[in-house]
Amino acid sequence: MSGKQRTVYAGLVNEKMAGQAITLKGWVQKRRDLGGLIFVDLRDREGIVQLTFSDEFSKDALKTAERIRSEYVISITGVVSLRAESAINPKMKTGKVEVLVHQAEILAESKTPPFDIEDGVDVNEELKLKYRYLDLRRPEMQKGLILRSKIMSSSMRFMEENGFLDIETPYLAKSTPEGARDYLVPSRIYPGSFYALPQSPQLFKQLLMGAGFDRYFQIARCFRDEDLRGDRQPEFTQLDMETSFMNQGEIMELVNRWITQIMSDVVKANIDSNSFPVLHWQEAMDRFGSDKPDLRFGIELHDVSEIMKQTNFTVFTGAIKKGGFVKAIVAPKGATKFTRKMIDGQTDYIKRFGAKGLAWIKFENGEFSGPIAKFVSDVKGQLVSFLSLSDGDLVFFAADTFSVVSDTLGYLRKYVAKELDLIDESKWDFAWIVDWPLFEYSEDFGRWIAAHHPFTMPNEEDLHYLDDGEDPHLAHAQSYDLVLNGYELGSGSIRIHTMDIQKKMLKALGFTSDQAEKAFGFLLEAMEYGFPPMGGIALGLDRLAMLLSGKENIREVIAFPKNSNATEPMTKAPSRVSEKQLAELGLRVPE
Amino acid sequence: MSGKQRTVYAGLVNEKMAGQAITLKGWVQKRRDLGGLIFVDLRDREGIVQLTFSDEFSKDALKTAERIRSEYVISITGVVSLRAESAINPKMKTGKVEVLVHQAEILAESKTPPFDIEDGVDVNEELKLKYRYLDLRRPEMQKGLILRSKIMSSSMRFMEENGFLDIETPYLAKSTPEGARDYLVPSRIYPGSFYALPQSPQLFKQLLMGAGFDRYFQIARCFRDEDLRGDRQPEFTQLDMETSFMNQGEIMELVNRWITQIMSDVVKANIDSNSFPVLHWQEAMDRFGSDKPDLRFGIELHDVSEIMKQTNFTVFTGAIKKGGFVKAIVAPKGATKFTRKMIDGQTDYIKRFGAKGLAWIKFENGEFSGPIAKFVSDVKGQLVSFLSLSDGDLVFFAADTFSVVSDTLGYLRKYVAKELDLIDESKWDFAWIVDWPLFEYSEDFGRWIAAHHPFTMPNEEDLHYLDDGEDPHLAHAQSYDLVLNGYELGSGSIRIHTMDIQKKMLKALGFTSDQAEKAFGFLLEAMEYGFPPMGGIALGLDRLAMLLSGKENIREVIAFPKNSNATEPMTKAPSRVSEKQLAELGLRVPE
Repeated sequence: MSGKQRTVYAGLVNEKMAGQAITLKGWVQKRRDLGGLIFVDLRDREGIVQLTFSDEFSKDALKTAERIRSEYVISITGVVSLRAESAINPKMKTGKVEVLVHQAEILAESKTPPFDIEDGVDVNEELKLKYRYLDLRRPEMQKGLILRSKIMSSSMRFMEENGFLDIETPYLAKSTPEGARDYLVPSRIYPGSFYALPQSPQLFKQLLMGAGFDRYFQIARCFRDEDLRGDRQPEFTQLDMETSFMNQGEIMELVNRWITQIMSDVVKANIDSNSFPVLHWQEAMDRFGSDKPDLRFGIELHDVSEIMKQTNFTVFTGAIKKGGFVKAIVAPKGATKFTRKMIDGQTDYIKRFGAKGLAWIKFENGEFSGPIAKFVSDVKGQLVSFLSLSDGDLVFFAADTFSVVSDTLGYLRKYVAKELDLIDESKWDFAWIVDWPLFEYSEDFGRWIAAHHPFTMPNEEDLHYLDDGEDPHLAHAQSYDLVLNGYELGSGSIRIHTMDIQKKMLKALGFTSDQAEKAFGFLLEAMEYGFPPMGGIALGLDRLAMLLSGKENIREVIAFPKNSNATEPMTKAPSRVSEKQLAELGLRVPE
Repeated sequence: MSGKQRTVYAGLVNEKMAGQAITLKGWVQKRRDLGGLIFVDLRDREGIVQLTFSDEFSKDALKTAERIRSEYVISITGVVSLRAESAINPKMKTGKVEVLVHQAEILAESKTPPFDIEDGVDVNEELKLKYRYLDLRRPEMQKGLILRSKIMSSSMRFMEENGFLDIETPYLAKSTPEGARDYLVPSRIYPGSFYALPQSPQLFKQLLMGAGFDRYFQIARCFRDEDLRGDRQPEFTQLDMETSFMNQGEIMELVNRWITQIMSDVVKANIDSNSFPVLHWQEAMDRFGSDKPDLRFGIELHDVSEIMKQTNFTVFTGAIKKGGFVKAIVAPKGATKFTRKMIDGQTDYIKRFGAKGLAWIKFENGEFSGPIAKFVSDVKGQLVSFLSLSDGDLVFFAADTFSVVSDTLGYLRKYVAKELDLIDESKWDFAWIVDWPLFEYSEDFGRWIAAHHPFTMPNEEDLHYLDDGEDPHLAHAQSYDLVLNGYELGSGSIRIHTMDIQKKMLKALGFTSDQAEKAFGFLLEAMEYGFPPMGGIALGLDRLAMLLSGKENIREVIAFPKNSNATEPMTKAPSRVSEKQLAELGLRVPE
């Protein structure tokens, strides 16, 4: 290897260096051979600069340049030179300079890559993952991971400055019920027993509070063996914190300062964390049909049940009679934008939320039109007034249970805003959602489960709902989610810190005493030895990095992600292992 | 919980706060009830301060104090007061003050703990691990984990300032041959296939260099399913870095600056990293009998084979004839210190190194004594001169292969130094060990294995040893270990970055082409697409934290370690899992 050290990154060469000798190391993006004059675009993690090879500067270097091809790794020494006015490339950060090469060395050759190393390249995802080391060379991938790294260091610094200790918790942990499916790790010493990879460090961080560490922070890997969607991965990373002796408001205030620092350090955004709206869960659901509302635009939900009761439209009145609701959103000036075909497409889509259909009316020239117009003509005046309709508006209705109506219109308001171009993509709209229900009904489990997790503290005034004979699912929790632009960034809560309440909580989840003891006996016992009041939050690093870098898939901000089958196409994990390995673990597997 | 926020940690209350009202939150270390006057030692992570409860300050608070017991969690508000001269406790950092309590609240009660929460407490290790959250409350455990946290933040800061990116690599990875035994994770989607938890991020960080990230850093968890010794854990943490385009010397210089910063930030030690000795592996073995020599004391090994050849002592001459060595160390003024019983004890101990016995002589009043004195009397003058013996010295000899002699005397020099109190425990003696053999013979595998790992670059001039017909195990490597006070802190190397050399290396390790392709095909292929020269190092965080906090076991600086059976007695991991979980994975296990 060349004895000379790099003096500067290629992407950082600038006009002020004119006349200076520099040494660069990087990859050949492009080579143009004009015969006796060769231009090379040299790329490194900071960007691209143009190298110029000519007899005039060095015969040897020119000879070397004749051999190089795309993606060769080279080391060069040369002199920075200002380009002639006519040769300036305003599209390049380094477009005002070139480097006249006096010495050149090939450090590594390259075959022709299976796809071009440039942004926006249209390549099959599997191929990109197989050659991930090539895909990662693309400037936007480099930027995404650099941004992710900055979020981590900004967070570490904030946490240290605020007295938080970085404490690592085990990855070889115990399988516990509740939550998602665990990844298991067979024990060799105790065949038939298994560790579990933790779904979060939740219990360990509570125990660290019990141990008196007062303030804990960890960039923690978490594992869930679930079927994957676009923004899910088998392993993901949380910015995980916990503190003793602080209440919900104090923790939220601390997180506000943390987020402010991240936004300033990472995307140079000056956000006013004092202005984060704090919405009660019920309010968020009522107004936006979502527990993670996108607040960059309006289009709120309106409950028109009282008005619709007066009609004879049985689809609406029937839903109300069953205890449901009729709600509406208005697409301003949407009457012309949304064609019949678009609306039919959405009618199909919303079936996934359990909606049976999509009712709509257009308001044009003072008249309602559309399939249900005739059913609501009697209440036209009330509707126009209640919904503040203007000429050209389109109204969508959903009539069903609270949950179906919320999901349907919560989705549609985003769809409408996108189609009408009402979303200011430059905005960072954070919000806190507080006062969540303690429990939610899970169709998967066929029973009530903890809305956050079984260690979440109920509101003081709701504690009695956990007593015998009361209805626990009426309780609300001391929990708080941080939302950004319609995505849940993180989920936090005050934790239960007394054995008595924890036992009631587990009982409400259907645990017998024996089951509670077997799964969480160590925690219940720990609570008997001076367990302090505590709370915390975990922010999803993958999602935060995705949002701050303007990506739409977390795979873009993970160095080596799994695909949707939880496999990693480059190394081909998972894979078969040897008989010896299985025998040592006492395992038998299907052939 | 009390509405008031803590204003200061208990351990940080000081004289300058006299007269101030403060709020503290913490654990009751001790309570002394003098009747109408109660003293409480309040503990938090920063230390202990004395609280004084009396009618004079608050009747209610005094009443509360009557109820509290050890390990209760309380919140108090009071006024800092200077103690009377006679009441000052010079052993306490806060011994000049007390806090006169005006308000007190019990935040959590506690049963009597199974052991006292204080340093030096003599408790069975299993019990301490079962109640780890109590054990961790002890001041020295808190200090150890706080120090560990400081090492991490100091390293993160250094790495960021030097342009390193924090990039996370997968924990669900591929099982590869070589190295230690993998922990496996069964795949649910592909029953019979497994992920492996990585033994290090080695290949991923090399691929990140191939992807052009240039400088990588990660605080990485690593996993090895091996039988455990005192300083091994199933999961451990590396401060892991890699850089492109730097040679061995440049990387070592960077690590020197890193270590200097850690030592300054964490233990306020000003070390001169320019003075770190750089020893060739051969020299370290010759002089100290160890590849991780403790340089805080002398007692070097001396090769006395030439002298011993002249004797008729067949134990010595026989070893030499077989190609072995006779070496000696001198215990200065050790003749009286080391009793026959002590020497017999060591004779037993060194059998683990393969030594067949331990020869020794005492040099007193100009005479040799001891069992072998008569065999070496003919060479007395030469020995006295060669070993620079003084009156009262004791000499230990080992006669065997290079490896047995080195291990035996390498161990004995540490034993002798300890017994003679020659070790300055306040010293931080770092050293680099370079120019390692590329291969070492493994008794476990019954063949030659990579001394570092199969991706280590041979010295340029030794590359030919990997060619057909040559003896690969003569090659030395571009590798460098950092040693502190006799412990290996970290292991680094320049990596192979061309397919050609990597294939030869795998062949020398006994891989067929097919096996090489199956295990490392993705790496070999990556090397064809512009893989840059690269190198790096990984420091063991657990061991570094152990050494810097003066502990002798890494379990003392890990929050939730496993015991020697790789189990975690608090949560009882590993454990049996449900039939449903096994069925989903297609696994069968012994009953």
